[in-house]
Amino acid sequence: MTQPRAAACAFLCRILCVALAAAATAAAQSPLPVTDDGKMNFPAGYREWIFLTAGLDMSYSEKIDPGMHSMFDNVFVNPEAYRAFLRTGTWPDGTLLVLEGRGAGDKGSINRHGKFQSGDPMNVEVHAKDTKRFAGGWAFFYFEGREPAGQIPVSENCYSCHLQHGAVDTTFVQFYPTLLGVAKDKGTLLPR
Amino acid sequence: MTQPRAAACAFLCRILCVALAAAATAAAQSPLPVTDDGKMNFPAGYREWIFLTAGLDMSYSEKIDPGMHSMFDNVFVNPEAYRAFLRTGTWPDGTLLVLEGRGAGDKGSINRHGKFQSGDPMNVEVHAKDTKRFAGGWAFFYFEGREPAGQIPVSENCYSCHLQHGAVDTTFVQFYPTLLGVAKDKGTLLPR
Repeated sequence: MTQPRAAACAFLCRILCVALAAAATAAAQSPLPVTDDGKMNFPAGYREWIFLTAGLDMSYSEKIDPGMHSMFDNVFVNPEAYRAFLRTGTWPDGTLLVLEGRGAGDKGSINRHGKFQSGDPMNVEVHAKDTKRFAGGWAFFYFEGREPAGQIPVSENCYSCHLQHGAVDTTFVQFYPTLLGVAKDKGTLLPR
Repeated sequence: MTQPRAAACAFLCRILCVALAAAATAAAQSPLPVTDDGKMNFPAGYREWIFLTAGLDMSYSEKIDPGMHSMFDNVFVNPEAYRAFLRTGTWPDGTLLVLEGRGAGDKGSINRHGKFQSGDPMNVEVHAKDTKRFAGGWAFFYFEGREPAGQIPVSENCYSCHLQHGAVDTTFVQFYPTLLGVAKDKGTLLPR
């Protein structure tokens, strides 16, 4: 190899090395717990995150399925995103909102009226923010178990519904009592 | 003063000082956020503690008041006590279980069915453990606002009900899905 060709080769190698290192750094610096193939890892510790609210059998449909299992929904968010919301009234990249469904029981122990939560989670969904990764800034993931989950296609109506009706940055802060006042104070609340 | 009397006086002073210092240390080492006059401080940060469960309109009475406001109950515990429970299946001194009532709405934003939480807390109660301070190891406190609260008298039926029906150490772990299995595994669960 002539000297000029050897120098050019060494230069290209350096560029390639820098590019590869940059890509690796970008992946490592992702604020979300994603796998190398773009799936979302199960948020194993979410029950120790910040609780935002619980609802019972909530639905936006006029008709409901009479055979549907009665269920509570618990919503949690990772502590870093919660603290950022308290400061700013909106969500940072790296936000993970977890929606957990739990069966609603009515008779058990001393309970005679009303409903209580029981059993293992019936489902776990994640709404994750990364403006560099997702079109629109957010993506949804549905976990069948504790294995990594692929992104729900953006054609599904969870995306359009959250976009149209979410009071802050496509999220339902109107149903999170401790954050609603923060969003009002910070001027980030949409009239939804 | 003769030399023996002076020496005796100095000795008694030292004993008094040691006793006073020990008392001050015992107060300072109380595992609960109590005031000097024995009231419980409002657990200001409880919404950032560990969430255990939420119920809706739960009642152990056969009859219910038809005029009663529909309400969710959210239960939180301080993280130190939660971690001790995961290790041992029971609660350490210093445990603070917080029961928060929130209004249950049904029509709002896009919701058409079911119930969601809204508004400020309607009430906050604390169940606190300190085996050196309370007869039976536990005491209840009801907060009207955010001022310190005095202990609910032990003649009230919250004490006897929790004693008779609480599945772990007078607490309703049978309604805390993520702790029920821990108590079973650790052998601390009573058949309630």
